[in-house]
Amino acid sequence: MIAIDFDKSGGLVPAIAQDADTGEVLMLAWMNREAYEETLRTSRACYFSRSRNRLWRKGEESGNVQEVQAVYIDCDADTILLKVRQIGGAACHEGYRSCFFRQVQGDALQVVGERVFDPKQVYKK
Amino acid sequence: MIAIDFDKSGGLVPAIAQDADTGEVLMLAWMNREAYEETLRTSRACYFSRSRNRLWRKGEESGNVQEVQAVYIDCDADTILLKVRQIGGAACHEGYRSCFFRQVQGDALQVVGERVFDPKQVYKK
Repeated sequence: MIAIDFDKSGGLVPAIAQDADTGEVLMLAWMNREAYEETLRTSRACYFSRSRNRLWRKGEESGNVQEVQAVYIDCDADTILLKVRQIGGAACHEGYRSCFFRQVQGDALQVVGERVFDPKQVYKK
Repeated sequence: MIAIDFDKSGGLVPAIAQDADTGEVLMLAWMNREAYEETLRTSRACYFSRSRNRLWRKGEESGNVQEVQAVYIDCDADTILLKVRQIGGAACHEGYRSCFFRQVQGDALQVVGERVFDPKQVYKK
């Protein structure tokens, strides 16, 4: 297994998910060793949720899983880049294709992303 | 100024730099509030170096600065995405266009990135 430096940040390293086809950056989440190994084994993105303090199999609730097509490691071996196929077309729990759907413009944030689904319908909350 | 949640991760949030033209993910670094505000003010990427424990004006040594063309914030307001023009063509201190120049292939890492410069020549070390 590849030597990722999980210790540098207290067991968690950032993992970027990028759309394999369009190059759009979809989201950033965190992985511990277990999440990383499961991601490699299953070719589905598995993160570690800091808020829930447990493994987070992306799409476990919404069905919008990420099929992992390639995995890259940065020069310091402390950041992971996944190229993924985003099932359902939206990575963000707010229903946007990308979590980075807001652009900083002066002192304001402008929504520039494309909304794919209504989160109320998907999460039934 | 936009309310980024710098407190969540002890004052630092991850910042992804993406090539504005090609969409290639170039690197991930960290920003504190001061680095973020300088980046917005100057439109040049300024990070916070965890190893040197000080502001890191990207390219201050190599000349390979990053001209910031757009700034995005994720849904949780705890990750920043920069679209940049990478001067010198290489973001990585090892001379590759992207810091993610190695791909995980089974139990091995394969160099898949393009080397743009020889770090020995640029950093004179």
